[in-house]
Amino acid sequence: MCELLAMSANVPTDICFSFAGLIQRGGKTGPHKDGWGITFYEGKGCRTFKDPQPCYRSEIAQLVSRYAIKSEAVISHIRQANSGGVNLENTHPFTRELWGRNLTYAHNGQLDGYHIALQTTSLTAIGSTDSEQAFVWLIEQLREKFGHRKPDNETLFAYLAQLCVAINQFGVFNMILSDGEFVFAYCYNNLHYLTRRAPFGPARLKDADVTIDFTQETTERDIVTVIATAPLTIDERWTKMQSGQWCAFIGGQLIASGQLQAPKVKSHIQSDLKPSTLPAEADKVN
Amino acid sequence: MCELLAMSANVPTDICFSFAGLIQRGGKTGPHKDGWGITFYEGKGCRTFKDPQPCYRSEIAQLVSRYAIKSEAVISHIRQANSGGVNLENTHPFTRELWGRNLTYAHNGQLDGYHIALQTTSLTAIGSTDSEQAFVWLIEQLREKFGHRKPDNETLFAYLAQLCVAINQFGVFNMILSDGEFVFAYCYNNLHYLTRRAPFGPARLKDADVTIDFTQETTERDIVTVIATAPLTIDERWTKMQSGQWCAFIGGQLIASGQLQAPKVKSHIQSDLKPSTLPAEADKVN
Repeated sequence: MCELLAMSANVPTDICFSFAGLIQRGGKTGPHKDGWGITFYEGKGCRTFKDPQPCYRSEIAQLVSRYAIKSEAVISHIRQANSGGVNLENTHPFTRELWGRNLTYAHNGQLDGYHIALQTTSLTAIGSTDSEQAFVWLIEQLREKFGHRKPDNETLFAYLAQLCVAINQFGVFNMILSDGEFVFAYCYNNLHYLTRRAPFGPARLKDADVTIDFTQETTERDIVTVIATAPLTIDERWTKMQSGQWCAFIGGQLIASGQLQAPKVKSHIQSDLKPSTLPAEADKVN
Repeated sequence: MCELLAMSANVPTDICFSFAGLIQRGGKTGPHKDGWGITFYEGKGCRTFKDPQPCYRSEIAQLVSRYAIKSEAVISHIRQANSGGVNLENTHPFTRELWGRNLTYAHNGQLDGYHIALQTTSLTAIGSTDSEQAFVWLIEQLREKFGHRKPDNETLFAYLAQLCVAINQFGVFNMILSDGEFVFAYCYNNLHYLTRRAPFGPARLKDADVTIDFTQETTERDIVTVIATAPLTIDERWTKMQSGQWCAFIGGQLIASGQLQAPKVKSHIQSDLKPSTLPAEADKVN
């Protein structure tokens, strides 16, 4: 399976600490050797660093984990390929324009038998992954439903969640999505989140021998939420999302959430439930 | 004014040498201090490094000029802002999907009075530059003309050139555009290109004390074209493009070109004609 990482914060915050943990799973403590990507928002603008190489030994990943880009919204993904070759056009996150903003998305899971149901007419996927096809379908549905104007967040999130359930019918679908203001997460089986706020304390990474004392790095007003496939630290209390649950964060705070009935997914793609520290199964799950 | 740089090659080639020259103009030998960006294609996929900081002291630009990403098509831009604030969403190049490919674009010049003529309905600019608005208008025109299928290159380039002339009516418009296969350039007043092929020789940068011997870096079959606002080397013969001229390159070779009548542009935006080594005029030309 692949691993997702997202951040929402009320002040521009660097994600170096979490990313340093994540990249260890990119071919070292985890099997996700088939590329990685990270998108940082600065207002409406965003920039993405990506590489089809394993991230634990990627020079660009080293730069990203060293060079403290501060952002209020981040979407990241490390990949273990199942659908689509290992190349740049299949490397998450994917970004498309919607309502004059960059919409960025990453997916963990595997879809099957979706080609007819998730066909698109106005947008075309560039790569060959199930993930990107689901993304362009999702945008096309949003455009068809709401036209050229973004609805209010409450309406948007409720409809997004319905679309996620519709995609989820075709297989394992955990996803994170941001427009730079909100960060939205939908869980089928494997997403956790953690909100850090005062009083801050120390935290230790699970995947690398790194400890940080957030009291040194933050002010009392800072609120930062990190979303990840599996908890990144060993001494903080992560919330496990439920199957069919969605959460939306703005400025680090949970501003809306809901619980839908997740579809039953066929057992041959349930291998995604395995913990990330198990050895890789060849090309099984995205 | 800003500076454009593009490359088309028949084998994956790194652009480190040319980029090392270009970044000196990003606040050091040239006044283009308002950000920079570079897009590398690998097949249909591409990745963009961008920064709203001056590139001559950007850590990311240093990585890009050191880390030899090999590509067959590159689009790059360093910016001196005129239209739109200095921020990430206004930083070139811009990329949008068209016909299942990433289309990447950068513009040198300044447009005026274009807001009604270059309005779009299906696509929305994310930032606030004249450049991005011209780009989304151009894509919308291509979609309206050709629908969801890319026409043959000959038809496409001829129509692209007409669209460039239409945009050019609103001011200085030099542009470079790529879909990863072709690199297309339209010149109003300031574009040069150079094709390197066997027998290769040495070349010396104009903006930095760097010399390269291409015989050490290439094979006999390599063909590489570099397009730039102003020649980057002092000992090679660059071809100056004419006003209204367009050129299309695939695999480093000029495969099509044409000459249209460029519109007369109002004199207040002719300052773009000044050479790049002059001191900056505050926020005058993009």
